[in-house]
Order: sequence, then C-alpha cells, then structure tokens
Amino acid sequence: MKKGIAASKGYAIGKVFLQEHEEIVITDTKVSNVEAEKEVLQKALEQAKVQLTAIRDKALAEIGEHEAQVFEAHLTLLDDPEFTGGMLLEIESNSINAMKAVENITNTFVMIFDSMEDEYMKERAADIKDVSKRIISNLAGKGGDAFAITEENTVVVAHDLTPSDTAQLDRSKVVGFLTNIGGRTSHSAIMARTLEIPAIVGLKDITTSVKNGDFVIVDGIEGVCIINPDQSVIDEYTAKREKFLAEQEELKKLISVKTVTKSGRRVEVCGNIGSPADAEAVVANGGDGVGLFRTEFLYMDRDSAPTEDEQFESYKKVLEIMDGKQVVIRTLDIGGDKTLPYLPLPQEMNPFLGYRAIRLCLDRKDIFKVQIRALLRASVYGNLAVMFPMISGLEEFQAAKEFVEECKAELKAEGKEYSEKIQWGIMVEIPAAAVYADELAKYVDFFSIGTNDLIQYTLAADRMSEKVSYLYNPMHPAVLRLIKMTIDGAHKHGKWVGMCGEMAGDEAAIPTLVEYGLDEFSMSATSILTAKKIILEQE
Amino acid sequence: MKKGIAASKGYAIGKVFLQEHEEIVITDTKVSNVEAEKEVLQKALEQAKVQLTAIRDKALAEIGEHEAQVFEAHLTLLDDPEFTGGMLLEIESNSINAMKAVENITNTFVMIFDSMEDEYMKERAADIKDVSKRIISNLAGKGGDAFAITEENTVVVAHDLTPSDTAQLDRSKVVGFLTNIGGRTSHSAIMARTLEIPAIVGLKDITTSVKNGDFVIVDGIEGVCIINPDQSVIDEYTAKREKFLAEQEELKKLISVKTVTKSGRRVEVCGNIGSPADAEAVVANGGDGVGLFRTEFLYMDRDSAPTEDEQFESYKKVLEIMDGKQVVIRTLDIGGDKTLPYLPLPQEMNPFLGYRAIRLCLDRKDIFKVQIRALLRASVYGNLAVMFPMISGLEEFQAAKEFVEECKAELKAEGKEYSEKIQWGIMVEIPAAAVYADELAKYVDFFSIGTNDLIQYTLAADRMSEKVSYLYNPMHPAVLRLIKMTIDGAHKHGKWVGMCGEMAGDEAAIPTLVEYGLDEFSMSATSILTAKKIILEQE
Repeated sequence: MKKGIAASKGYAIGKVFLQEHEEIVITDTKVSNVEAEKEVLQKALEQAKVQLTAIRDKALAEIGEHEAQVFEAHLTLLDDPEFTGGMLLEIESNSINAMKAVENITNTFVMIFDSMEDEYMKERAADIKDVSKRIISNLAGKGGDAFAITEENTVVVAHDLTPSDTAQLDRSKVVGFLTNIGGRTSHSAIMARTLEIPAIVGLKDITTSVKNGDFVIVDGIEGVCIINPDQSVIDEYTAKREKFLAEQEELKKLISVKTVTKSGRRVEVCGNIGSPADAEAVVANGGDGVGLFRTEFLYMDRDSAPTEDEQFESYKKVLEIMDGKQVVIRTLDIGGDKTLPYLPLPQEMNPFLGYRAIRLCLDRKDIFKVQIRALLRASVYGNLAVMFPMISGLEEFQAAKEFVEECKAELKAEGKEYSEKIQWGIMVEIPAAAVYADELAKYVDFFSIGTNDLIQYTLAADRMSEKVSYLYNPMHPAVLRLIKMTIDGAHKHGKWVGMCGEMAGDEAAIPTLVEYGLDEFSMSATSILTAKKIILEQE
Repeated sequence: MKKGIAASKGYAIGKVFLQEHEEIVITDTKVSNVEAEKEVLQKALEQAKVQLTAIRDKALAEIGEHEAQVFEAHLTLLDDPEFTGGMLLEIESNSINAMKAVENITNTFVMIFDSMEDEYMKERAADIKDVSKRIISNLAGKGGDAFAITEENTVVVAHDLTPSDTAQLDRSKVVGFLTNIGGRTSHSAIMARTLEIPAIVGLKDITTSVKNGDFVIVDGIEGVCIINPDQSVIDEYTAKREKFLAEQEELKKLISVKTVTKSGRRVEVCGNIGSPADAEAVVANGGDGVGLFRTEFLYMDRDSAPTEDEQFESYKKVLEIMDGKQVVIRTLDIGGDKTLPYLPLPQEMNPFLGYRAIRLCLDRKDIFKVQIRALLRASVYGNLAVMFPMISGLEEFQAAKEFVEECKAELKAEGKEYSEKIQWGIMVEIPAAAVYADELAKYVDFFSIGTNDLIQYTLAADRMSEKVSYLYNPMHPAVLRLIKMTIDGAHKHGKWVGMCGEMAGDEAAIPTLVEYGLDEFSMSATSILTAKKIILEQE
C-alpha cells in the first residue's frame, strides 16, 4: 500500500501500464551548418504545432473549453519570440545543436518560473517543460505521439503526466492514474477531476514499485493505492466503487434541486470561475450562479492588458451563459503573489501586506477604468454584481464607488448603456473589514468572505510558508468569530453574505457556516453537488 | 522657512555653524610596498581606537550608558576580521592604497546593510560609514577631531551628523541642529532627544540654504526652521521657548507623582527598554516599571547567541535597577525583519507572516531553553513578568508554559532558585488573539497589546511599504474595536492589559485608551512624563 496526494476522487481497479521514461540523450556537439540546424528545429516546431492543434481540438470536443485553453497556451509558447525565438538564436550564436538549444532555453525559463511562489506561475514551468519535451521528442524522430493503450481497465503509472498526456488518455480504456510527482492543483490533476478519472499524484516512487501487468487499486478519495491486493481487498474496493458510483448518480439528481435547509431557509450554491468556459461547468453542476469570477485570469498569459472590448465580451458571455442567474465579478486582484509581465510592481518585503488589488486599482485609475467601463457595459446582459477585493475600510469602498459614478457619466455622455441594478459589494478578507462589518454593511449591497486571505491575516500565517502553514486553520475560533461577525453585521442591515474562499467548499465547514446563516456558498463547479447535499441535510 | 522631520523637541534660536563637507579625494593608485601600506592602515586603525575610546568614555559620563554603546559597537567594528581585516587583505591582494581599500570594503558592507528593510540593520550601515569616515580622515592626517565651536547659542547645520559628531557636541554652546538627511529613529536623532537638544533632520538642502553666521530658529516640535527671521518672529519663538522650558520643568515635577485619573483609577506608565542601561532612563523619568524589555537586542551585534549566564546577568541587572517595580520581559522576537548572523532563517515570501518569535522558539527549543532558564533564575531578584510574542491561539501559550515547567524541573534538580511569583502573559499583536481575548484571558496572567504589528495585520498593510503605508492607521475603527475587545476580554476574567506599541506613547491616542480602561502604558522613557500629564487629566 502506498500513500500519495488524492488528486481526483473515485475508485479504480485495473492493470498497470507503466509509461516508460524515454531517455533522449542530449549532447553538447557543435554544428558546422548553423542554417541547416535552424531549419531542423523549425521543422520540429511546425510538427509540434500540428500535434498541439490536434490535441487542443480533441480536448475541446471531449473535455471542455477551459482544459483546451492549456493547449492554446502551449501553442502560444511555440510562437513566443523569447522562447522558440531564443532557441533559434542560441543555435546561431553558439553553433550548438538543436536539442541542446531547446534544453538551454528551457532550463532558463523553467528556473525563472520555478523560483516564483505563485502556483499559477509554477504551472507555467510545467507548461514549458511539456512543450520542450514535445519539441525534443520531435527532434529525436519519436514524434511525440501518445502512448498506445490497448487493454481495458488500465491504470497508467508515470513519473509525471503532462497535460497533453492526460488529454490524450483513451477514456474507454484508462480507469485511473498514478504519478511520482505533482500536486492537487496541477493541470493534470484538474483534468483528471474534469474527466472523472480517479488519480493519485505525489506517490514519490510508484514507477519503481510496480511493473507492467501488476494489478492495482486506486483509492482517489484517501490517496491510497494497493499493489497486487488479495481477492478480499478487491471485493472490498469493488463494493466501495459501486457505492461511490451510485452516490455520484444520486448527486446528479440534485442538479436542478433548489437548496433549502430543513427549516426552510434558501441557501445559494454557486461556482467560482476564471473564464467564460468555466461558467458552463457551473451550469452543468446545478450552480445557482457565479459567486466569484476571478478576472485576473483575463489579464494573464498576455503581453498587454485586455482591452475594454475584450473584457466586455468575456463578462457578457458569462452573463449570457448564466442566463439571468447572478454573476459576482471581482475587480482585478493583482499584486501579492500574482504579477503581470506588463505591469511592473514595486519590490516589497511582504507582498501579501502590500500594493495589490483595490489598492493598486485606486492608484492606477487608468487600468481600473478599462475594467469598470467593461463591467458597466456588460451589465445589461444579465444579473451582475461587482465586488472590490482587499477593502480595509469605508474610504476605499467609497472611492471605488465614486469612480464607478465617473465611469457611468462618461458612458452616458457617449450614449452607451448600462444597468442601474448592479449590486456593489466588497470582499471581506482583511480582518478590519470583518471586525467593522456592521458599519460597512450600511453602505455595501453585499459581502463575500474570502477565507484564504482572511485566515492568513487573522493568524498572521502565510499558508505558502512551509514553516508556519500548520497554523493556517479555517476552524480557528477567532476565524469563526470573524465570519460570524461579518454575517451578523450584514444581516443587521438586511444585506446578504457569500463566501468564495476554499472554506466554502470544505465539507467539514459547511454545517457551521449554514448554522451561522451564510446566504451563499461559492466553490469550484465539481464541489457544488456535494455541498448541495450537505446543506439540504442541515436545519 | 523650511520643513523637515522633527527629531528632538524644543525650540532653539541661534547662529548657524555650517559643518563643511571635508572632501578627501580617494585615488585608485597602486602601492609598491604592500607591507608598508598595511602598516599605515594599522596606525590609522589604532588612532581610531584611541579616539573612539575617548568618545565612548565622554558619552558614558555625559549622556548615558545606552548612547555609549553605539561607540562600543564602533570599537567592535575596528576589530571585525571581515571589516578591518578585509581592508588589510584588500591591500595585500590588490596592491591598492589604504584609503581605497577602506572605501571598497565599506561600500560592500554598506550595500549589504542598506538593502535590508529593518531599521536596526539600516543603522548598522550608518555605523559602518561613521567608522569608515574616521579611518579615512585619520589616513588623510585630519585626525577625526570634533569641529571646534567657540560661540554660544550655535545651531549646527550639516549634511548628516554621525553619532560621534553628535556625542562630541559641546552642550554649553550648541543649542540645536539641522541636517539634510536622516530620520526620527537614527542614532543621532535619539541622542539629540537624550541630550535635549532641539533638532530637525531630513531638511534635504539646508546646508546650501544657509551660510555661516545666519540666524535661525529651530522648531523641533513642528519640524520647521526659519532662516533670518524678523524681530517679531524671534520674539514669538522666544516666548514659545520659554513656555516650553517652563512646561518641561513642570513635567519634571511629575516624576514621583502616581498616575491616577480624575475618577481615581490608577494607571501605570512604564518604559520600553532594549538593555539594562535603558532601565535607568525609565527610573529617571518616573516610570512605574518596564512594560517591554526587547530581549532581541541582547542577541544582536554578536557572533553567537548570548549564554544563559550572560542573559541572566542582564535580566538580573534590570530587575535590580527597577528595584521591586514590575519588569515585563518579552521572549526572543526574532525573524520577520529581524535576523541574526548566527541563526539562518528560511527564505520566505512574506516574512511578517512567517517563521518568527514564538513560532521559532517553540521549534528551536535549544535556543528557547537558554532564555527561559536565564529568566527563571533572574526572577528571584525582583518583580518579573514574562510575555511571549506572536501568540495566535491557546495551544502556543500552553506549549510555551509547558516548556517553562520543564525548565523549572531542570533547575530544581540542579538546586537552582527561581520565583513562583512570575506573571506569564502574551503579546496581543495578531488579530486572532484580540478577537479571542475573552477566552485567552482565562489562561494568561496579563496581555500586552503590540500595536505596531496588530495594526499591520488587522489592515493587511506593511507600514514599511511606501505604497501602502498610508493605510497604517492606529485610529482605524477596527483597530480601536480590537483594542477594546482585548481590554474587555481581560477584565472579564480579572486580568490586566498593557500596551507597548508606539500607540501607547501617542498623545492623540492616550485619552481613548484611558477611556477603554487600559491598565498600563509602556513607551520610550522620554515620553513618560508627557503621558503621565495627559492621563492625570482624564476622567
């Protein structure tokens, strides 16, 4: 039995297919004909483009738009003048062979991204490695093809699965996967959850612990895999698997059920999204609306900020997909651990306590205006609520609202439409906002509690810091009190309160939050049905 | 009229003495006789040692032990193998002249310390520059003497005053000083306050705005200086000065007065200290005790941690100086922006939310034990209270207390004495502790509110970050509520509450804090009498 990180829930029972580590030896050999070598690389890049386009289209058809975006990002990398352009330049300047050039540039890029704390940025390193591997494989004449799996009930075991490996898995044959490395938030783990393939990552040495044809059980709930189990264990897990699948079927019946507690209180269960594509998953999982649209994703993976029209289109699309259901859009929350290549930020000793979110937007009205105008213009296409992140006091909310009025006046002068029914709220993620909630509630239309930051600040513990992450505890009595104070403060003035941090989807926390009177829970789409089920069981 | 940073309060009216910028040109010339050049440097170092010893002794006799320690640190630098040793090595390795060697090593050291965020570390850079200037002056045959001031009522104007300049000022003649650069917490500013010489720093271009013999008014309260004023202005400030001096005399009468509000409530006014020497200033200013002994200063400016005996001697000395008055000692608060050369800390993205203070001590019991044993042993020499910094919940306090019991058992087994009357408390500086104060109060003997950190965390704003320091507001309603919750929570269980952050000495905040029922205020010794006066005027 081996324990890893549960990455996608469910049970799988099947035979091991060991993805062999294809060792391509890269030499330091110099080339005499630089132009010919550049052409060799150009061809491998073209080949990669054809392959990735095919994978993207397959992902789009079989998995979803959001997952397909990963390969869109890979395709963009192929055209990046610093990435592939750098490889060509490397051949030209140093007369080295194409593989070595790919390796050198890749190492530089990976080093930069790996050194960043932000998970999103670390994922960029994984993308770069994935694309680089593909190019080198093409250069070695190995074509970068997916591994061919012929048997049904196969459990794929690999050192790591790249997003393209995962996207190409034959779902009719692959029932689970196990990897040595990776975390719960890696692209592959996210894809496994979307594909509903049970998976365990971070098993450290699973590739050397099993051989082809071994029989394994994958317990994607406990993160445990059992190698060559006895028949009694197989029977046990077969029963568990059947029960799990039946429960999943049961959950699906809740898609169109309105979430009402036993005492008759209506509670909304919504989804957190990062793009219009995610909104479809929220609808598919029976979400009552979008509780958090993280607009910073619109700003990432680009050379410049999205224009007003680009943003308008995204907001409009989400509002249309949600078809009259409420969509809460959070204004740009950049800074802290999230940076943009085209927006240089000051070096700060403690970026989490620094220049970010609304602080940056109120300082950089040029950036803020583009977003506010786009939001106002989109507001006529649905039921829009807007919230400002990192509000520490009334002045900031009022300054933001005043700026909204300026933008409205501008639009009016230009003869452009906007709705007067937008709700304006704030994220409660700074302790001051929670402590002062009963006063702030007089001015806002709603609160949304951002537990990830609220917990960090309340306990003065960065959950990314290995040395103190043990202190990060959503159920700390002081955290619970601040949540209660926020809810009570809002209700005193007839305002509603949502929660969009991870705690909202935490099965252990939901009963307490319902008891406190939380009006809206927002979480990843895949957690919505389970949350509905739990809420339906509360008083 | 020019506005700068008020560094030492009071009024001065006098004639300008412009400290000329002695330009010593340092060349890149190589030397042929390396050994001879090293000897030249050695002599300059010896000369510096003689000079600094004399200045230290003068400071000790005329200013105070704490101020004299600055020169003790300078003397230590002269023996630092990396600093002066590095200079000698630089001559040997590169055959450069002595001045250039001093300059090179100084630049390296200054760059390292200047790049640190911590004020204490930045001050090290100032010390290094001061010592370096002295060595170069000696090498140039200019002897490093103090500038000779012959006239009475002189206002010294300089680009910057080094601590040694300040210590050597002839107090019978110098009535004020003005500098282009510097801040309120620089050594020179601190010395000016101790010497009671009105001073304004950070005037940017005062050296080019006045000439020798100009008549100036120094308003060390508003941070304003007036150049060649009319007689009417001189009369106005002469009157202000007399009033101020009379008030100072009045304040001195409060030294032995017990601070009781008009309604008869006794409030303690104590001092914050960093060394035994500081305790004398607390007594001299009529402090009721020590409300915060920052023990980390015992750990700084050294190659290794202080031994149990060294710490014991320091704690014992403070307890003896305070002669039965309560002394609150805070256990080691290292980490965050405070580092020690002999204690490597993990690299963290947000050190203020990281591995520091009690978190570090509970993890590094080897370090913690030395201090706890020293504290326990010292406890028999006076009225000791001990508090743990950065407590976020009950578990940490209980773990610390359990460890104290282990240390007690050890001492008992060794036949060593300790008092059973020590009070054990916590710093309330993390929002969680304030929110949860009414529960924590059941277990602790007292609270001490650390406002500097409490405000930073409550508002999620690093006050060192230029971009967001505007948010740092002690009077933010949420901060005031947390303070009130802490006091109410403690009083509910019959425990007392002190405050040792800067807010405790803030004249504008004191009336509110008295109204909230704060039991003890702790501040720098020089603020005690003014605080006493304000408290006596409250209900």
